[in-house]
Amino acid sequence: MSPTDKMDFLTAALQLFQDRIPFHRTLGFEIDFLTPEPVDTVAVASGQVVVKFDFREELVGNYVRGSLHGGVISAVLDAVGGLVAYLSLLERLEGQSNEAKIARLGSIGTIDLRVDYLRSGIGKAFLATGHVLRSGNKVTVTRMELHNDGQTLIAVGTGTYIVG
Amino acid sequence: MSPTDKMDFLTAALQLFQDRIPFHRTLGFEIDFLTPEPVDTVAVASGQVVVKFDFREELVGNYVRGSLHGGVISAVLDAVGGLVAYLSLLERLEGQSNEAKIARLGSIGTIDLRVDYLRSGIGKAFLATGHVLRSGNKVTVTRMELHNDGQTLIAVGTGTYIVG
Amino acid sequence: MSPTDKMDFLTAALQLFQDRIPFHRTLGFEIDFLTPEPVDTVAVASGQVVVKFDFREELVGNYVRGSLHGGVISAVLDAVGGLVAYLSLLERLEGQSNEAKIARLGSIGTIDLRVDYLRSGIGKAFLATGHVLRSGNKVTVTRMELHNDGQTLIAVGTGTYIVG
Amino acid sequence: MSPTDKMDFLTAALQLFQDRIPFHRTLGFEIDFLTPEPVDTVAVASGQVVVKFDFREELVGNYVRGSLHGGVISAVLDAVGGLVAYLSLLERLEGQSNEAKIARLGSIGTIDLRVDYLRSGIGKAFLATGHVLRSGNKVTVTRMELHNDGQTLIAVGTGTYIVG
Repeated sequence: MSPTDKMDFLTAALQLFQDRIPFHRTLGFEIDFLTPEPVDTVAVASGQVVVKFDFREELVGNYVRGSLHGGVISAVLDAVGGLVAYLSLLERLEGQSNEAKIARLGSIGTIDLRVDYLRSGIGKAFLATGHVLRSGNKVTVTRMELHNDGQTLIAVGTGTYIVG
Repeated sequence: MSPTDKMDFLTAALQLFQDRIPFHRTLGFEIDFLTPEPVDTVAVASGQVVVKFDFREELVGNYVRGSLHGGVISAVLDAVGGLVAYLSLLERLEGQSNEAKIARLGSIGTIDLRVDYLRSGIGKAFLATGHVLRSGNKVTVTRMELHNDGQTLIAVGTGTYIVG
Repeated sequence: MSPTDKMDFLTAALQLFQDRIPFHRTLGFEIDFLTPEPVDTVAVASGQVVVKFDFREELVGNYVRGSLHGGVISAVLDAVGGLVAYLSLLERLEGQSNEAKIARLGSIGTIDLRVDYLRSGIGKAFLATGHVLRSGNKVTVTRMELHNDGQTLIAVGTGTYIVG
Repeated sequence: MSPTDKMDFLTAALQLFQDRIPFHRTLGFEIDFLTPEPVDTVAVASGQVVVKFDFREELVGNYVRGSLHGGVISAVLDAVGGLVAYLSLLERLEGQSNEAKIARLGSIGTIDLRVDYLRSGIGKAFLATGHVLRSGNKVTVTRMELHNDGQTLIAVGTGTYIVG
């Protein structure tokens, strides 16, 4: 594929991730890029892709502090971890059809996830990022972080994903 | 308190947990007892309390299989873990006022959580249970399980909660 | 294989696990059965096999309390987790040669491990047990427990192992 | 304390950590600084302190590959995590006596630990580093990494420590 085709495919795949996963819509997750023009899969996998969402009352867990529920935090960390695991897998699928690549999105599954809740999830908007620690044929390990719009680190996570 | 007063308080506290935590309402979580007449706090803490919810399309993560999003699973495990941590704390607060006891609900926070996703979250309804591994003055460690209505074990978790 | 041959093989495999893994010798780990005559692989995998070791000064981490180092605890939990993962894998290898089965022992690797340190590792002797939560073609998830000779639960763990 | 006294105390405390914890001697752990002249506690806590050890046959877990046992890896990650948690605590103890500060070393305990084993533990020497994610009055969360002498990242970990 040409770089343009590659980005078109990537944009379409990320759109699917945002629009076709019902729980991502329920929580208001949006996929975005950190830079205006990400160059290719590798760049995207290495941290240019993010999952964003705005604060909403219905995401609150602690009604005294008005902070995000831990489940919202683990959901977004799991989402961005799965996303970077998928992007890392895409690099191994070079040369396969777009249909084959899209089909693999449905085969990725979280094996386990650890979340460390560092500070109260307070903010107007939140941004989750991730990167791959180890990418394998069967299993990929990722690290994820959640910041609020004030650049405060809210939580970190480590996830193990089956990709085979 | 008499046993009746104790149960009245407990029922009220659990009701709060269900109704006043917005994200629990968003996901449709309900608190329930495994037995029709739980006797007291100790019995409740030792596993008679459960968090239930029904399958709904908007909770789906894998649109091919139609299974729950991992974030829904970690949310319910975190919720039931925090609940049994709170019930365990209540035993230490014997003799304090109901107001003081209720206030402590807001001070419980998840430090970290590990979730193991064992099988696809497929079912009509789901039931999460938990028990305390270690109850301390500052930190409580709990284990949690999620089953579907066919008694299949979907996921397990371990959580560390600050309670001090 | 006849049941006798099966047990002979199992005993030999467990002996390897005890004698050929240098760090197990360094820590004084011994493989044993909970019952005098375990019937077969399935029974062994379902919890009849244990890893035991005696307290020794050189295993101490906290010199004030004289308790085991956390690293000793995670080592024994990792060992028993890998062992039950291997025993579970053996069931899938029925019909293969003993050489093939032994060779697979070297291919098992820990992907990740969580340990919860519940109480001080104090005692004259320690016993670690484990069981399989999910056994797959590529990945097996296990739970492990460590008790001292006074039946006190010292620590628990959850491990994810690559077995493929 | 003057900066010199501070470093003298620090050096003495780290020496204790190396020499008085029996299991650290068993595994051959040495405490060292990344830079020849670390300036103060803060600098040390922020990553200038390391735990090093040389490969030895008795630390091997996989006798086919000749790689470190997972238990050695979790032991060194737990050790360096506890060390940076202690150094972070020291900053809060400014003004207290050296005796009081040393006494607190014995009160630090690991609550839980997650280790991700990324690559085989092969090398002539190994170096573990760590940093604090959240430092609290009761609980400190740290991240740790293990590299070999070829700068390969072998494993990472996240630990939660009680410091109160």
